[in-house]
Amino acid sequence: MSRTVEVTELVLRDGHQSLLATRMALEDMVPACEDIDQAGYWSVECWGGATYDSCIRFLNEDPWARLRTFRQLLPNCRLQMLLRGQNLLGYRHYEDTVVDRFVDKSAENGMDVFRVFDALNDVRNLRRALEAVRRSGKHCEGTICYTVSPLHTVEKFVEMAKQLQDLGCHSICIKDMAALLRPQPAYDLVRGIKQACGQDTLVHVHVHSTTGVTLVSLMKAIEAGADIVDSSISSLSLGPGHNPTEALVEMLEGTGYTTRLNKDRLLKIKDHFAKVRPRYAEFESKIIGVETEIFDSQIPGGMISNMESQLKQQGAGDRLKEVLAEVPNVRKDAGYPPLVTPSSQIVGTQAVFNVLMGRYKALTGEFADLMLGYYGESIGPRNPEVIEAAAKHAKKPPITHRPADLLQPEWEELRSQALPLKGCDGSDEDILTYAMFPQVAAKFFAQRAEGPKNVSKSPAKAAAPAAAKAADGKAPITSPVTYEVRIGNTSHQVTVAPA
Amino acid sequence: MSRTVEVTELVLRDGHQSLLATRMALEDMVPACEDIDQAGYWSVECWGGATYDSCIRFLNEDPWARLRTFRQLLPNCRLQMLLRGQNLLGYRHYEDTVVDRFVDKSAENGMDVFRVFDALNDVRNLRRALEAVRRSGKHCEGTICYTVSPLHTVEKFVEMAKQLQDLGCHSICIKDMAALLRPQPAYDLVRGIKQACGQDTLVHVHVHSTTGVTLVSLMKAIEAGADIVDSSISSLSLGPGHNPTEALVEMLEGTGYTTRLNKDRLLKIKDHFAKVRPRYAEFESKIIGVETEIFDSQIPGGMISNMESQLKQQGAGDRLKEVLAEVPNVRKDAGYPPLVTPSSQIVGTQAVFNVLMGRYKALTGEFADLMLGYYGESIGPRNPEVIEAAAKHAKKPPITHRPADLLQPEWEELRSQALPLKGCDGSDEDILTYAMFPQVAAKFFAQRAEGPKNVSKSPAKAAAPAAAKAADGKAPITSPVTYEVRIGNTSHQVTVAPA
Repeated sequence: MSRTVEVTELVLRDGHQSLLATRMALEDMVPACEDIDQAGYWSVECWGGATYDSCIRFLNEDPWARLRTFRQLLPNCRLQMLLRGQNLLGYRHYEDTVVDRFVDKSAENGMDVFRVFDALNDVRNLRRALEAVRRSGKHCEGTICYTVSPLHTVEKFVEMAKQLQDLGCHSICIKDMAALLRPQPAYDLVRGIKQACGQDTLVHVHVHSTTGVTLVSLMKAIEAGADIVDSSISSLSLGPGHNPTEALVEMLEGTGYTTRLNKDRLLKIKDHFAKVRPRYAEFESKIIGVETEIFDSQIPGGMISNMESQLKQQGAGDRLKEVLAEVPNVRKDAGYPPLVTPSSQIVGTQAVFNVLMGRYKALTGEFADLMLGYYGESIGPRNPEVIEAAAKHAKKPPITHRPADLLQPEWEELRSQALPLKGCDGSDEDILTYAMFPQVAAKFFAQRAEGPKNVSKSPAKAAAPAAAKAADGKAPITSPVTYEVRIGNTSHQVTVAPA
Repeated sequence: MSRTVEVTELVLRDGHQSLLATRMALEDMVPACEDIDQAGYWSVECWGGATYDSCIRFLNEDPWARLRTFRQLLPNCRLQMLLRGQNLLGYRHYEDTVVDRFVDKSAENGMDVFRVFDALNDVRNLRRALEAVRRSGKHCEGTICYTVSPLHTVEKFVEMAKQLQDLGCHSICIKDMAALLRPQPAYDLVRGIKQACGQDTLVHVHVHSTTGVTLVSLMKAIEAGADIVDSSISSLSLGPGHNPTEALVEMLEGTGYTTRLNKDRLLKIKDHFAKVRPRYAEFESKIIGVETEIFDSQIPGGMISNMESQLKQQGAGDRLKEVLAEVPNVRKDAGYPPLVTPSSQIVGTQAVFNVLMGRYKALTGEFADLMLGYYGESIGPRNPEVIEAAAKHAKKPPITHRPADLLQPEWEELRSQALPLKGCDGSDEDILTYAMFPQVAAKFFAQRAEGPKNVSKSPAKAAAPAAAKAADGKAPITSPVTYEVRIGNTSHQVTVAPA
């Protein structure tokens, strides 16, 4: 007797977001859709904040049209999205009726599974979105952002799972965006949730592979009863991405667990994205291989490179070690938020400020908001002295209520701002695009008619480097290089760059 | 209460063998030795057939001098080598007293742990070497080559473990050179060996990471009682190499298992080899990421590329699929040998012959020898018709005794051939080098005095591409590329290559 473990394929969203800076065009996904549809996945994650943003910012693609295309090409497969709770796909809190409308429109355009999370794990920031999903009749997945701190115990996470269950979630997701979830906590956490919420509660596990241990964590999560796990097809996997789907399937062979996945289909999907990936080489993540230092610093790789470049801009490139040592202090003062967008940037930037200018001598507006409760509640108490400094800096008081409680109905105002924009078609979808990214939306509406712009090297342009790659297995040159070049009998210093 | 799991570091042998074609020079290992020595490893694998061969063939390094250097720089750490049983480090069977002498000299020069294997798992080919190791007072590790076939059951492998134990081995190694060892068989195999041989029997597990599942297999092996596991520092890990040492350490955090490894030391070792690796970029394995197709074809990646190039040379590059389908037939006819050097090449080449010229219409000499028992016994019966064809082709009868039983004492003859060679110093070590690789040894002796030749890009030469890499994270250009170049107002087609 074997138990079936269900799988969510990530390649259409988090896979290329983590490895190719979210730049993959819809047309490079379309040829794989039939195989994805038939492979036997529980769901296919294909939409979220970064993909939406990238569509309108870089690709001149309407994200809603992309969603409808997936719906058409993946008729047998649940479509899944990642939703930032009250932030929707943007970077601020939205008023409740905007949340409702966004969820309704997403459901209407074809979304099946809504994975809803909050960067601070503040359940109040999830409630409205979860209610809207339930009302739409779609699958409502409440999310726990996994992190490590003295306060983040299995018990605390299980308590949050219980709250999500009480809010009517159809499944509970453990979201390990920084690859910090080791095998034993994975086991304990899944078992704890199953014990507290009932064995029938669907537990869905999302891990990244940055630290190299999380396929083992998936194995232990499955042993503890996890029902659905996330992975990405092998040709867009590993590094800061995810564990390879094929390895997940093979790992279970001979155990008491099995997937419904069809290996022939997986091979075709793999081959497709293996061909696509090199064309996006310039967007490749700079993190490759395995980074276990994250376990000690608890600072995700992307956050370190952000801080490095901030320091260099200030001529203080040699002070990274001090900043790395300061991050845990800032995080503690802020009540131990998980380090995930946007809290990772907020905490990281403040740590840079503290090192360069003295501790809390200067505050960023975002850090002040974080300290004052305008992002929500954190798990631990916040440092009262820093709260006081923040209130002074921001000229507003700390709050303890749900941040969105402050907001007035804003749909009509958003609508009246969006409608006059050149190229806005007046649909609710366009108003929502404007609501998420006002500046970018205006530019996008104006040029939408020009059609999608694939930012990968076109097959023709990519041919030469691809041939070079085939010959020696190396990546093509992508930045200017100076050579000594002889033409006839004359020698020149020449700087060249790919056309 | 936690159990300590011991670790063997592979970076000085199999790590760079699997990822950098065994090209790493001793001088690029020396700076890491103090940290390796102090990190808390059970042993450091640092010597074997390919490293020995590469030393004299490419690096103009005396492999014995390399061994003595390791002994000096790693005083607190067991040195470990891989020995091909009766083949020693060469490609033929040696007469028993040569085996004895090789083992004695290796022990005398500082080797502590001898991992002894045979490509066919024929224990008769291991016996003499194992006895020699035991007599030398060093650690004697008998090895099971793991493979998958209808005949390779857990029971069969456990039976072999029992035989190795009866030969007095201090430990039993499960060697998974093709990354075929899935988690459940890893568990079953280790448990089976422990049950049959006693819980005190040391079980040592070696896996590659090609298929992406084997860190999970190490976890299950440890849960089943494995005492020592192999890994390679993260900056030279993954792909066709091994699981990262740091990930292994982190994976166990919070479980009932722990290692003795010092994470600060590991970080230094990682940083060192992260700097070294790019200089060997031209030798990098072309296999990256994860290859789970191996599970179905059971054909290691390196073997497929061999067959591809053989087919292309014959103008039959389009017939790979037929060859891949033929390999299992040939392997069955040969009694299901594990596919590892040299059996993988022998079986693969014969499959190519069968497809191009008709089944067994032409035989390679090596395949005839394999069929006739000159490499030893395989687990399954061999096809009698093919044995007959092989006997006819090779003009010699099949044998059932141990292949080396045929051999006459050969030390004096080897000695008399080696001594006159220009540059031979007359030591037993030199005679052994000649015995292993007669042609290459002659050339090596003659030029030994010129000293080691580091084949990596020298720091100076590597500087420019390294700077380019730092800027954009891409590998440097390594082959000629044609550009359109403008100098002043004139446009030229120019082909450039790195200086």
